[in-house]
Amino acid sequence: MFDFRIDATSGAARAGTLMLPHGAVETPCFMPVGTQGTVRTLSPADLRAVGARVVLANTYHLHVRPGEDVVAKLGGLHRFMAWDGPLLTDSGGFQVFSLEGFRRVTDAGVEFQSHVDGGRRVLTPERAMEIQWALGADIAMAFDHVVPGGADEGVARDAMDRTLAWLERCAGRHRELAGGGKVGMLEGAQPSDLPAFPPSHLPTFPQTLWPILQGGAHAGLRLECLRRTVALADWTGIAVGGLSVGEPKPVLYDMLETLQPHLPGTLPRYLMGVGFPEDLVAAVERGVDLFDCVAPTRNGRNGQAFTPDGPVSIRNAAFREDARPLDPDCDCETCATFSRGYLRHLFVAGELLGLRLLSLHNVRFLIRLADALRAAVRRDDVTRWAEEWRRRYTQTETP
Amino acid sequence: MFDFRIDATSGAARAGTLMLPHGAVETPCFMPVGTQGTVRTLSPADLRAVGARVVLANTYHLHVRPGEDVVAKLGGLHRFMAWDGPLLTDSGGFQVFSLEGFRRVTDAGVEFQSHVDGGRRVLTPERAMEIQWALGADIAMAFDHVVPGGADEGVARDAMDRTLAWLERCAGRHRELAGGGKVGMLEGAQPSDLPAFPPSHLPTFPQTLWPILQGGAHAGLRLECLRRTVALADWTGIAVGGLSVGEPKPVLYDMLETLQPHLPGTLPRYLMGVGFPEDLVAAVERGVDLFDCVAPTRNGRNGQAFTPDGPVSIRNAAFREDARPLDPDCDCETCATFSRGYLRHLFVAGELLGLRLLSLHNVRFLIRLADALRAAVRRDDVTRWAEEWRRRYTQTETP
Repeated sequence: MFDFRIDATSGAARAGTLMLPHGAVETPCFMPVGTQGTVRTLSPADLRAVGARVVLANTYHLHVRPGEDVVAKLGGLHRFMAWDGPLLTDSGGFQVFSLEGFRRVTDAGVEFQSHVDGGRRVLTPERAMEIQWALGADIAMAFDHVVPGGADEGVARDAMDRTLAWLERCAGRHRELAGGGKVGMLEGAQPSDLPAFPPSHLPTFPQTLWPILQGGAHAGLRLECLRRTVALADWTGIAVGGLSVGEPKPVLYDMLETLQPHLPGTLPRYLMGVGFPEDLVAAVERGVDLFDCVAPTRNGRNGQAFTPDGPVSIRNAAFREDARPLDPDCDCETCATFSRGYLRHLFVAGELLGLRLLSLHNVRFLIRLADALRAAVRRDDVTRWAEEWRRRYTQTETP
Repeated sequence: MFDFRIDATSGAARAGTLMLPHGAVETPCFMPVGTQGTVRTLSPADLRAVGARVVLANTYHLHVRPGEDVVAKLGGLHRFMAWDGPLLTDSGGFQVFSLEGFRRVTDAGVEFQSHVDGGRRVLTPERAMEIQWALGADIAMAFDHVVPGGADEGVARDAMDRTLAWLERCAGRHRELAGGGKVGMLEGAQPSDLPAFPPSHLPTFPQTLWPILQGGAHAGLRLECLRRTVALADWTGIAVGGLSVGEPKPVLYDMLETLQPHLPGTLPRYLMGVGFPEDLVAAVERGVDLFDCVAPTRNGRNGQAFTPDGPVSIRNAAFREDARPLDPDCDCETCATFSRGYLRHLFVAGELLGLRLLSLHNVRFLIRLADALRAAVRRDDVTRWAEEWRRRYTQTETP
């Protein structure tokens, strides 16, 4: 369980297979985001149809609504959202630090205000583990302190040190939970914060914990964080966090290039929150295996569709009588069934089906892109393939 | 083509088979409404999955957006919305008379203001035929003058007389179109009102025209309208319009009972705009074969689900940790896959998937209800079955 096998490499790029309790995952792999326990507009059947292999859900969102106790009582997150494939939950760290409004960080944890009811809540490394344990995803993520893209070295070091101290506590609590330790009273936590579900609702599948590398845009900190993280435990995967949070794009690529030679070759590497098509290609070239991003669904709902010739806005009047599919190369239900003219009509007329059809296509687009990269790795042809893909994707002509 | 065969009867209730260019339709049959060329939130694959046999689309809405010329250029309504089963288009009469804002009725037709761009437009009986011909549905409806449920006899007679005069013009124009007559210049119409599509985009399947009975809540007028309509031509079906427009429910049942013995037994009977479960059952008992209504999708989007024990509001806090399916008797994707607790979460969290899952279930509920009525007719058991169904559906306990 949680084994990762490298099937082929091409430069720094890798094709691998990750074994998880709910199934095997071929990498590179794009993971659609189901923030509130649903990938917006898509059903589990849709997700299977577009070839999704891992789905991500947000611990913070599910904790505040409906609450991990409700999810656990309804059989855990897999049963709750009717997704029987692998699941990954983030730790809530990123969400808590992106929240508007009240938030107080101490070494103990973070006190924050729920975006749903405005109530004060506390998230600690231990609590983040317990919530994720109750949700029952295949992969849980460590609770980290995320700083904005432009944070200076002092701020970034402080957050990195805290992330590492929290990681140790996460690992300790996760070990206890995995060993059958009970979810008990925590220092400073109020009884109302604690899950009330009986142990019979705890996950029956094993769960693994992945650490998250922080360090902002500072190469020295990133390498130090990696060194100290690797020294801490025998991990089954490793994530790079705190990028794609407002820093310029070359910084993202630089950080990946800095880390790449030093990352343990045998662990799957997950670049958090990254998933515009051009970033996915660039990150695979720099040795990343797993990705997640809300872009395909969020942009889809806004009427933007990914195509091999670059993104298009479906509301464009040029599509009014266009009988062609959105993307003639695509095999998704949207492209196999509907004309651009019809899709444009759905958006112009405010029809909900349009939101789903573009979300469906965009997720399929990223999954096919990752599959194509995997094939290129196996042919040891990533550099040439990526070059050609970029030339077509970034051309300025309208398709 | 357009044949209707009665397979069985039970009292006034009938089970039949209607042959249409795009397929056979077993009756009683509930037709979901795709106002703007899409049954809100549902894909054609969803419609097939819930067993939809005929889909209704709105001439008025498609005329103002995207325009019948666009639909015709994109291959006609079947191809446009990717629905290869039978389609019925209403005439626009009901919509024009339900519009807020400017509207002027003369014997020539109706001048009205588009709800999309505020522009003045004219709909005449001839134009309603041409638009529906361009859309290419299997069944077109006559352009009628609808009055509110409480209209007095004078107002109702005036509208009925106009409806009958318009029916003659509809039939004339439809005969011309069906005989290959070209869509040409109309008296009083502006060139910009006319479809610009070449004849090659005209439907390649035959289309039939059904008349609509008016007469408000006045039995005498209803019978007169029926008599004069039947005398006018050799129809393939007949619709009852202008009910379910604000009149008390007993009026609807009275009018059906008044008409039932006099309706031609060999024609399929379509009760327009009716489709709450209890109305569908009552109307089948009174000899109706076809129904349409936005209730299943509109109520579904509002979080109301039909169940054999009556409608439930999925947002109800009682469902928070309810692991049961919405309707244990139902075979739809929603009931086969998700718990009430999860569906409630989707609605409380404002997730779009919830709108679709409840719409899907509600449409399936009405289609299964019509199927169950058909089976009861074939067993000559409608009265007892309907009695029992009503007892359960109208009970006041929460399920």
